[in-house]
Amino acid sequence: MLSEILAFQLIKVILLGIFSTFVAFSITPLVSNFLFKHHLGKQIRTDAGPLFSALHGKKEGTPTMAGIIIWGTVLIVTLLFFLLDTCFDGIWKNINFLSRAQVLLPLGAMLGAALIGLIDDLLGVWHVGPHGGGLAMKEKLIFYSIVALIGAWWFSAKLGFSMITIPFIGTVDLGVFYVPWVIFILLATTFSANETNGLDGLLEGTALVAFSCYLIIAFVQGKYDLAAFLAVLLGSLVAFLWYNIHPARFFMGDTGSMALGVTLGVIAFLTDTVFYLPFFAFIWLVESLSVILQLNYKKFKKRKLFLITPLHHHFEALGWPETKVIMRFWLISAMMALLGLALYFLDLFMI
Amino acid sequence: MLSEILAFQLIKVILLGIFSTFVAFSITPLVSNFLFKHHLGKQIRTDAGPLFSALHGKKEGTPTMAGIIIWGTVLIVTLLFFLLDTCFDGIWKNINFLSRAQVLLPLGAMLGAALIGLIDDLLGVWHVGPHGGGLAMKEKLIFYSIVALIGAWWFSAKLGFSMITIPFIGTVDLGVFYVPWVIFILLATTFSANETNGLDGLLEGTALVAFSCYLIIAFVQGKYDLAAFLAVLLGSLVAFLWYNIHPARFFMGDTGSMALGVTLGVIAFLTDTVFYLPFFAFIWLVESLSVILQLNYKKFKKRKLFLITPLHHHFEALGWPETKVIMRFWLISAMMALLGLALYFLDLFMI
Repeated sequence: MLSEILAFQLIKVILLGIFSTFVAFSITPLVSNFLFKHHLGKQIRTDAGPLFSALHGKKEGTPTMAGIIIWGTVLIVTLLFFLLDTCFDGIWKNINFLSRAQVLLPLGAMLGAALIGLIDDLLGVWHVGPHGGGLAMKEKLIFYSIVALIGAWWFSAKLGFSMITIPFIGTVDLGVFYVPWVIFILLATTFSANETNGLDGLLEGTALVAFSCYLIIAFVQGKYDLAAFLAVLLGSLVAFLWYNIHPARFFMGDTGSMALGVTLGVIAFLTDTVFYLPFFAFIWLVESLSVILQLNYKKFKKRKLFLITPLHHHFEALGWPETKVIMRFWLISAMMALLGLALYFLDLFMI
Repeated sequence: MLSEILAFQLIKVILLGIFSTFVAFSITPLVSNFLFKHHLGKQIRTDAGPLFSALHGKKEGTPTMAGIIIWGTVLIVTLLFFLLDTCFDGIWKNINFLSRAQVLLPLGAMLGAALIGLIDDLLGVWHVGPHGGGLAMKEKLIFYSIVALIGAWWFSAKLGFSMITIPFIGTVDLGVFYVPWVIFILLATTFSANETNGLDGLLEGTALVAFSCYLIIAFVQGKYDLAAFLAVLLGSLVAFLWYNIHPARFFMGDTGSMALGVTLGVIAFLTDTVFYLPFFAFIWLVESLSVILQLNYKKFKKRKLFLITPLHHHFEALGWPETKVIMRFWLISAMMALLGLALYFLDLFMI
């Protein structure tokens, strides 16, 4: 009986993943043409110094906000099967994966962050805001904190979560500290994804690795609706990465990177695997740390630690071609993720 | 009890993989310096037409034969733990993974193909042989067929194999046809790997994907010695790919590509998963097919099907940068492998 369920869910996940890839490939020309037509091109930061301009000036004008393709595909596919289930009887009940306990929260958080990112991207393209570059850092922090707060409240109030598992040690009840802990992690994954989104395909590749790990974990934990959601997300990411491989046809923008970041964080809490995030999203962590370390070095030691941050630009400044940084970061990402998965299963076998 | 065994084997596999990566990184400067010092550089084919020369003339002189690092690492690590087990009592018995049923054959086949490849590479560098480029195609076919024949004989006579599993259908006893079937597949994987080895990191990345799948399958099948062997191979491949990412510091040569190819084929038979090879090594298959189709088109239709083969050069000729071909082929490779794994588990659940 269990094996029949597993077989059905596996077929479902495979077909959903393939279907989602096709949907993403289908809507890509529409979105891409729209972005080109309305000159929604990337403004390369001019406040980041001559080094950054030298490295990335050539990317000026490449369309941004194409992250719409990623969350748009997820939204279309999820709603399609939800509507089919609502309107018709039969098999659709088993295919619809929009469940309250598993999918509503990551989908909602994704769309919330995507919306804020979209507004920010538009303000940037239209030269609105401080320095003409969209929302100020303080405003971003406030808006994304609201998304994180809603997410944390949902976990706590609606799903009744307050425990976290520390691998190889045990379960701890965080009580009232659960909500701030969730907010902290969600902000960390959201802004880390954003920092990583600086080279063609770098964020997409590392995100594919991280979400693939969670597809496996969702399956192992029997969270089949979440697995279906992840398959759809992976399908859309594959199509997006196809076009984003260097030289990128378009960028995902904050509407893509912030959405991916918060989604990963939410899924880590849904599967109670927050302590594996440093393995599954190792590059994101390192990119974020590089920025934080650099700021502190400048402040306290009055000198720079890296030539330029986030870290991927440091290696570019050292002379590595962009593609070399990308591929080596992908490689590190995949290996750390494999290690993380191995540790996850080790923990599982040791219980 | 089972979970204790699984936990121990998982720890073993993780540590062996990490150890192997360190060994490979350690011997890389030695091998690399040796190759540079003795001018063991790649001769770019001059018989492949002006298109090929235009695309790859710049790679002339990059050291080749660095595949020694890959199989050298595997050999060193495997023998190290075998010797520790032979010389000392205790824990080493559980760590040594050189078992007759699981590891002797892939290791032997790897070294056999590596040796022939090494001789071929040396002849090429020294301008010996027809067209001054090493062994002629006919000679290659004969030598590698001998390796394949020994492998097939070992499967049949020593391990008593003659059955193969057709996914979702069942098991078939091939009887006397088992040996020619093994020879055919081993030659196919060997020469396909060689065809794929034409862009920086292309073969390494697709090989990482394929062998990772087999690491999982070996685990699922309880073939822990094979899993350990695969972890060591993956560790060395990671280090090699690190340096081989475009622009490559050195090439693996036939001594690397042929060794990887025959090893994958042997492991497919050891795990009785030959029919999943088209998924796990999808790019290898496509590259090989492109060459075969091109030859037949030229012969029977008197025209070319592709601008140039193997297929990766066709896309280069269409104007894709080398890194774009590599990364897109990696992406396809990873997705087809995921699909193959999903089908494997589906078959498993359906039994």
